[in-house]
Amino acid sequence: MSLLTVGTMAFDSIETPFGKVDKVIGGACTYVSWAASYYSNDVNIVSIVGGDFPNSEFQALQQRGCDTSGIEVVEDKKSFFWAGKYHENMNERDTLVTELNVLAEFDPVLPDSYKQSDYVMLGNLTPEIQQKVIDQMAKRPKLVVLDTMNFWMDVAMDSLLEVIKKVDVLTINDEEARQLSGEYSLVDAAKAIRKMGPDILIIKKGEHGALMFYGDELFYAPALPLALVKDPTGAGDTFAGGLMGYLAKTDDISFENMKRAVIHGSVMASFCVEDFSLNRLKDLSEIDIQERLHQFKSLTHFDI
Amino acid sequence: MSLLTVGTMAFDSIETPFGKVDKVIGGACTYVSWAASYYSNDVNIVSIVGGDFPNSEFQALQQRGCDTSGIEVVEDKKSFFWAGKYHENMNERDTLVTELNVLAEFDPVLPDSYKQSDYVMLGNLTPEIQQKVIDQMAKRPKLVVLDTMNFWMDVAMDSLLEVIKKVDVLTINDEEARQLSGEYSLVDAAKAIRKMGPDILIIKKGEHGALMFYGDELFYAPALPLALVKDPTGAGDTFAGGLMGYLAKTDDISFENMKRAVIHGSVMASFCVEDFSLNRLKDLSEIDIQERLHQFKSLTHFDI
Repeated sequence: MSLLTVGTMAFDSIETPFGKVDKVIGGACTYVSWAASYYSNDVNIVSIVGGDFPNSEFQALQQRGCDTSGIEVVEDKKSFFWAGKYHENMNERDTLVTELNVLAEFDPVLPDSYKQSDYVMLGNLTPEIQQKVIDQMAKRPKLVVLDTMNFWMDVAMDSLLEVIKKVDVLTINDEEARQLSGEYSLVDAAKAIRKMGPDILIIKKGEHGALMFYGDELFYAPALPLALVKDPTGAGDTFAGGLMGYLAKTDDISFENMKRAVIHGSVMASFCVEDFSLNRLKDLSEIDIQERLHQFKSLTHFDI
Repeated sequence: MSLLTVGTMAFDSIETPFGKVDKVIGGACTYVSWAASYYSNDVNIVSIVGGDFPNSEFQALQQRGCDTSGIEVVEDKKSFFWAGKYHENMNERDTLVTELNVLAEFDPVLPDSYKQSDYVMLGNLTPEIQQKVIDQMAKRPKLVVLDTMNFWMDVAMDSLLEVIKKVDVLTINDEEARQLSGEYSLVDAAKAIRKMGPDILIIKKGEHGALMFYGDELFYAPALPLALVKDPTGAGDTFAGGLMGYLAKTDDISFENMKRAVIHGSVMASFCVEDFSLNRLKDLSEIDIQERLHQFKSLTHFDI
């Protein structure tokens, strides 16, 4: 099945306790696409970059079966740039620089061939842009997943609530779930958010894993404790990429299969954080993925 | 098998966003004993209280098969008292009052009948007191578990390291594991702590569950997301009580059974937080426990 992914492609400068990198490739859509490409060779990318974004990145994605014709290149402008520094505990970070550049004029236009996509991943962007993508679809996709953040709850709650009505899955972190719902208990928050539209809520808890509320069902995928976590940037997007890639591959949105999809998302995220940028994600073998999948299985498995 | 549990019995005054209670029954040993009593009727308690501690509490424990002859009652003094207030997020709390009272003179003397106990739970106390208990055992217990906290790392690291050498399992939280080992990664922290003595490290992560490093094996038991969390006080001790009660009942310290023990600890802790003091813990049925056990199983179960 085809997967449509919409979001940023960007340059990042990042400092963590384990090192520092300058103007490396980043962006939600980049992480989503790379992770998804291990499962699906029918990934349609919608994004915007400046003339400074290397062509080799498009070629690498094309070689993995991604369609990059929906990426707008504004030759005389610069790509979105973000710089951040992580605290010692890696759970918190300070944003040092945000240069929107081309992102300020992002008005996504879907190529016709994208409009029939079966699965849609709306990366963290203004709710208005996310809405515009949904409006351009020629048919109701099988599953629409929306990622957002507290910033849009602060400055654009009304339009966020509008677009949330139209999606099947919302991915946010625990604090954002509390902010959006006004409920402290995540169980109550999930109930409230379900009434806003999405049947499924996936709460991303970083190093503590991910929690999925699927109707009245509940699933908890812990993160794998790793010896080496170099850089958490992109982990949430990589999670979404693994999840959506697996769904596009298996075309099954039952609870049982969504659980597997959450695990595959967690598997991909566990690779992402082991190195800066997409370094680790660009170099995975099927054996790497299968081995880690079995580590996730044994991590929580017990017999009563 | 018999279980020896050593720790505080106390009065607590607690305020959380969900209510306020004054001078209710608390203390690590109380929580451990109640939780363990659902699995074992051979629980030997060592603690100290003042003349103000109600006799009815001893009787209630005796009715559940606990031996309270190792509890020293200092008639003319007051019991240990702690008052605290939880923040809105319930993960942090401020201590408002700590009155050691009888605890300042705690010098545990084990009744002879306790000295053959098979399983030993050393609750959070000064490392010197924990050491004194170990020294009084007539034989090497099958498993000694030690709970401690950052305070003892700050003020008594040397004696803490001495007693840690002699135990099989250490239970601490993630920040404490990092402080004790000097390693940020929990995987590296577990390796370093294993070299200090304990073969098994259980990292308590509160609402994020518990992580067990057992030799080279790893197990993650998430906490059950609950609609109602009224008061987290005693959750860690209740976890330890469920764990140790289950081990004393099954007398099997293999990795597979330790995983089940961690789950039973999590089950008991999930009840503890649903009400103040021991209110919920004093009133559980076998059906309650079995139902929740199955909720834990389905929470993380997936097929690859």
